[in-house]
Amino acid sequence: MSGNSFGRLLRLTSFGESHGPGVGGVLDGCPSGIELSRADIQADLDLRKPSLGSTSTKRKESDKVRLLSGVFRGLTTGMPIAFYVVNEDQRSRDYGELAEVFRPGHADWTYFQKFNGIRDYRGGGRASGRETIARVAAGTIAKKILQRHKIVIFAGCMELGGIPISPDETDLAGAVTRPYFAASSTAPAMWDARVEEARAAGDTLGGIVAIMAGNVPAGLGEPVFDKLEAVLAHAVMSVGAVKGVEVGNGFASAQLTGAQNNDPLLPGGKFASNRAGGILGGISSGQDIVLRVAVKPIASIARKQHTVDKQDRPREILIGGRHDLSAIPRIIPVLSAMTALALADALLLQKRMDPC
Amino acid sequence: MSGNSFGRLLRLTSFGESHGPGVGGVLDGCPSGIELSRADIQADLDLRKPSLGSTSTKRKESDKVRLLSGVFRGLTTGMPIAFYVVNEDQRSRDYGELAEVFRPGHADWTYFQKFNGIRDYRGGGRASGRETIARVAAGTIAKKILQRHKIVIFAGCMELGGIPISPDETDLAGAVTRPYFAASSTAPAMWDARVEEARAAGDTLGGIVAIMAGNVPAGLGEPVFDKLEAVLAHAVMSVGAVKGVEVGNGFASAQLTGAQNNDPLLPGGKFASNRAGGILGGISSGQDIVLRVAVKPIASIARKQHTVDKQDRPREILIGGRHDLSAIPRIIPVLSAMTALALADALLLQKRMDPC
Amino acid sequence: MSGNSFGRLLRLTSFGESHGPGVGGVLDGCPSGIELSRADIQADLDLRKPSLGSTSTKRKESDKVRLLSGVFRGLTTGMPIAFYVVNEDQRSRDYGELAEVFRPGHADWTYFQKFNGIRDYRGGGRASGRETIARVAAGTIAKKILQRHKIVIFAGCMELGGIPISPDETDLAGAVTRPYFAASSTAPAMWDARVEEARAAGDTLGGIVAIMAGNVPAGLGEPVFDKLEAVLAHAVMSVGAVKGVEVGNGFASAQLTGAQNNDPLLPGGKFASNRAGGILGGISSGQDIVLRVAVKPIASIARKQHTVDKQDRPREILIGGRHDLSAIPRIIPVLSAMTALALADALLLQKRMDPC
Amino acid sequence: MSGNSFGRLLRLTSFGESHGPGVGGVLDGCPSGIELSRADIQADLDLRKPSLGSTSTKRKESDKVRLLSGVFRGLTTGMPIAFYVVNEDQRSRDYGELAEVFRPGHADWTYFQKFNGIRDYRGGGRASGRETIARVAAGTIAKKILQRHKIVIFAGCMELGGIPISPDETDLAGAVTRPYFAASSTAPAMWDARVEEARAAGDTLGGIVAIMAGNVPAGLGEPVFDKLEAVLAHAVMSVGAVKGVEVGNGFASAQLTGAQNNDPLLPGGKFASNRAGGILGGISSGQDIVLRVAVKPIASIARKQHTVDKQDRPREILIGGRHDLSAIPRIIPVLSAMTALALADALLLQKRMDPC
Repeated sequence: MSGNSFGRLLRLTSFGESHGPGVGGVLDGCPSGIELSRADIQADLDLRKPSLGSTSTKRKESDKVRLLSGVFRGLTTGMPIAFYVVNEDQRSRDYGELAEVFRPGHADWTYFQKFNGIRDYRGGGRASGRETIARVAAGTIAKKILQRHKIVIFAGCMELGGIPISPDETDLAGAVTRPYFAASSTAPAMWDARVEEARAAGDTLGGIVAIMAGNVPAGLGEPVFDKLEAVLAHAVMSVGAVKGVEVGNGFASAQLTGAQNNDPLLPGGKFASNRAGGILGGISSGQDIVLRVAVKPIASIARKQHTVDKQDRPREILIGGRHDLSAIPRIIPVLSAMTALALADALLLQKRMDPC
Repeated sequence: MSGNSFGRLLRLTSFGESHGPGVGGVLDGCPSGIELSRADIQADLDLRKPSLGSTSTKRKESDKVRLLSGVFRGLTTGMPIAFYVVNEDQRSRDYGELAEVFRPGHADWTYFQKFNGIRDYRGGGRASGRETIARVAAGTIAKKILQRHKIVIFAGCMELGGIPISPDETDLAGAVTRPYFAASSTAPAMWDARVEEARAAGDTLGGIVAIMAGNVPAGLGEPVFDKLEAVLAHAVMSVGAVKGVEVGNGFASAQLTGAQNNDPLLPGGKFASNRAGGILGGISSGQDIVLRVAVKPIASIARKQHTVDKQDRPREILIGGRHDLSAIPRIIPVLSAMTALALADALLLQKRMDPC
Repeated sequence: MSGNSFGRLLRLTSFGESHGPGVGGVLDGCPSGIELSRADIQADLDLRKPSLGSTSTKRKESDKVRLLSGVFRGLTTGMPIAFYVVNEDQRSRDYGELAEVFRPGHADWTYFQKFNGIRDYRGGGRASGRETIARVAAGTIAKKILQRHKIVIFAGCMELGGIPISPDETDLAGAVTRPYFAASSTAPAMWDARVEEARAAGDTLGGIVAIMAGNVPAGLGEPVFDKLEAVLAHAVMSVGAVKGVEVGNGFASAQLTGAQNNDPLLPGGKFASNRAGGILGGISSGQDIVLRVAVKPIASIARKQHTVDKQDRPREILIGGRHDLSAIPRIIPVLSAMTALALADALLLQKRMDPC
Repeated sequence: MSGNSFGRLLRLTSFGESHGPGVGGVLDGCPSGIELSRADIQADLDLRKPSLGSTSTKRKESDKVRLLSGVFRGLTTGMPIAFYVVNEDQRSRDYGELAEVFRPGHADWTYFQKFNGIRDYRGGGRASGRETIARVAAGTIAKKILQRHKIVIFAGCMELGGIPISPDETDLAGAVTRPYFAASSTAPAMWDARVEEARAAGDTLGGIVAIMAGNVPAGLGEPVFDKLEAVLAHAVMSVGAVKGVEVGNGFASAQLTGAQNNDPLLPGGKFASNRAGGILGGISSGQDIVLRVAVKPIASIARKQHTVDKQDRPREILIGGRHDLSAIPRIIPVLSAMTALALADALLLQKRMDPC
């Protein structure tokens, strides 16, 4: 109810603040018998580390994950799997002014309102991007469940700072190996210049991420309120900085006619096209699930901004500290993890339909 | 778990198929003491009736709602409120071929896969738009809860068949009085021609809907996984034909810089702009909540389409029966209702934070 | 959240008041392909009718159930199954004084407090035993799911008005055919005299019910908080008039030693005894699940009682209307239904553990 | 869904195994602004330590709790509160045989069945009593919430090894200070002899615990399925070794008549008696809530027992290691914590009914 859990049968509960002792999570509902090691999770966490690409923060942390429960002799036991990462680099002095002044575009003011004036303002507290560590760690486990069914998830950057990848160059499968997790090999060079321009201007950039899930069996998702696209939208819109999501043709479908937008069915569970993005009537069709996600520019710019303080007085703020120039690329492993959690949950849920 | 419920403290469970005895729902969690009559709900149901605008089906139904529980002497009692609409016009003969052949763009094939070959194929069964009656009826009650706090919701059509409303003509508050629930007074005339063109071609149209919620207090929504925009996205993406959702600047924010996209705070809980669409860090900011929703063209076109049958043989299908030419305008009261359900739920949930 | 739903994957939401239009429920999560007819449910509802045994009310109702959704051509479709019973015999004039005066032992006063002074006082409103119609109807469907796995449930009266059945005469399987759903053939004669005595005194009786579930596979239930006995206790304690529940040796085990209370394991998934009542560590062991439930005497006695009214003035009340002399036997099909709902839910939940 | 969470608005998720790295939990939904320190939780954890009374294990652990999140400058922030206790004393060599042989009366065999042959058998793994650390830690926080409303909870031992306390000597409020958390000052001496007798016989003892919650306002609990007694029964029956629960007169009420069992109402929200145990129609009445809980004798006796091994061969087992002679007294802080969690959850849930 209070927002810190996601999923139905496979349910992640996360905890931790940016400058508290650490961040972590508990994933309940993972079936027994899945091979899992600390190193599996660490490998995914390393993908969201500050060192990747040219747009990242200089904050240095080892982010070594510890497995606290639910795994015995290298196998999951069906018990809750808890994981935890200590916050090693807590330079609280960077954030002193934040006790008093609300940063534009952040959760500062709304948390202050919601929680009756009480909040951990250090580095954004709970609203910091560090909470995504728990999403990524749980996503590793979700992907292990999906792998049993050969389901794969690819995610990559399609557009950064207004510069898109041309559709015919798109290669999502290779994105994980490229700077920015770019969905084409030529994009990073273009984006480097845009990034330098923004950096020089003390400004930040947004972008668009594409996510594709392949080998998803037909039948996942539920009718009416928990349509698969609704659950996926919930999953990705819950990630900070995400401002929009579309499936298949998405917003473009609003301009098409039915004849242009329908996917004819072919024998063998095939379709002549995939304008629907792999979901029909809320249920997966067996085609690739295709999402696009809009990521806003990071709110922490290196410029003076107008705002107010706790006493409701007008103030100027110049945000110090170490900040990313874009949520791209670090958000991409997070979006991939959320997609994995949603799909693995749907997969386990569908097992109740198996013939007895 | 099985997809037919929505909400946490204010929870709607719906039931019913297009050509079964009827459709209805149960709304649990409504506080006691709210004035509610059958007529209140009927008025909202009438807004989604086939007669509105020039794009609607000719199917004639009275859709008279009955209140089965939870109201005593004109006031809600805090008990579950059940409502029910009999399916009066069940011309099952229109749908005979649908027992064997899967319609492109519909849930036919995916339901067949999910439910082990069993489905009520008459008029789409559970996947029919008739299930939205329960959403609208529950939305009436949600709006009554919101009204206690002066919260209002407006929704209107911003674009139909690729023809948008110009931003400076937008008037969402007046949409409910216009054909197509158009968000400007000049749009319907433009759209009439587009509709006739599509009708002549045996084709269908999509569109874009804007939703605005005003007077929402700061503090609604939950951190991390149940951010207000995530819950709203879940709510609207669960409506059939919706393929995308964005909040505030949405996809456009991906092309802006942080300096362009941040909303400076002003004294008195005000902001200099509302690019965020009324939500910061997942929590309402007190500004208008602004959503845009992409609606695909209706899949039931009046043309032959390629598909397969239950025996996986290639087939051509020409869908008969009575169908809308666009989900616009009927989807608009549904989207408004889902927004109301999500916000009223968030409002009740926030009451746990009240000082004791 | 608001108390009108039960279950996780198989979830019943019920609605309706004693003297409103009717009572009903929606069962979501039933797998597709189960044979189900209106008559199946009606047969179980008839078991809880006033005509059974010599302890029942004279209130006459046909209680004809209608199936509103979720069944097509005699098979469940996987969609929510809604059922509804019209309240035919609404003699509201019997209950006029109840608008002002709180009956001892009933929910009158506590509902008044909880719901800010608003309640449907006619016949107990939502707190009436008529809400159990939804439990029994849903229980029919749960039992159909259990039957696929040969699981059977028996329930019977073990003690009425302080007169117990001797253990060596206990025959739960035959209880459904006897007056009082007595767990022995000789008990009804003993109990008739006790009932007449109570009736003459204007008083009411309590009793003890035993429930047994056979052929339950090992492995149902969840660790820690949702142990099978915890969920079963929740299920039966939610029935009005139930004041206690025990599993296996129950309260008697508090007086035994470990050597006396342990069940030695035998090869083949057998045990040398069943003191545990079929559950170990919260998980079913494959042995019979055995519960005992304490049922208090009905609060509506035919004697003057001291109480207060809405203005908090002392009052005497003599409850008129038609009332049962004991919750036995009518509560027994209800307890059986709740047990079935809890077990069918656990069964569906365990399917997520099936090897992929 | 998978059993490791409890509560609705105030929700505990726990994790950890007896001989893994540690045990802990996450409590989500605690309001902001409550004073909370590590020491508060430690004080309650110390109450369930092995050193109390004469019936406890010799296992030595410091069980130092760490607070990982959700508290800032001594106040809760409304964010999830995570706590963690390292398992310091992991003598796994004591448990070698348990990899192969199932202990009677434990979860060994049923976990083996449920989780497809995979389990952490060291010290009972997840089914060990060490999981109750998370319950007690969360209970501390729940009690802090209850204290805002002056609600207090007392729990004590009423009967041990078949030797009860006489009703007129009962003093629950003082139990926390006595050996065995005895509900009378004279009981411990009686029980010491019984304990020595059992120890000499290599046997174990059960008992009965009473729980009382005072100052509970009228109006907590929900109608129908989530009656307060149903939720409380769920809470306490989820604790290992609990085999029965009753509220108020409980099983004794089955032998009373309505005239004997009803509680007459008096002006001022008072009642002439409290046979109902503080709950009417599932809703708290403002009177003391009174529960009694049956605790079975611990299954780990120091005698040879018949059982089977993983290959389904008959075996004898003599359980070594360090074990308690009774779940009394250590279970009592656990039952108190579960009661607190259930009541604090009900309290927060009721706030949605506050006038807006």
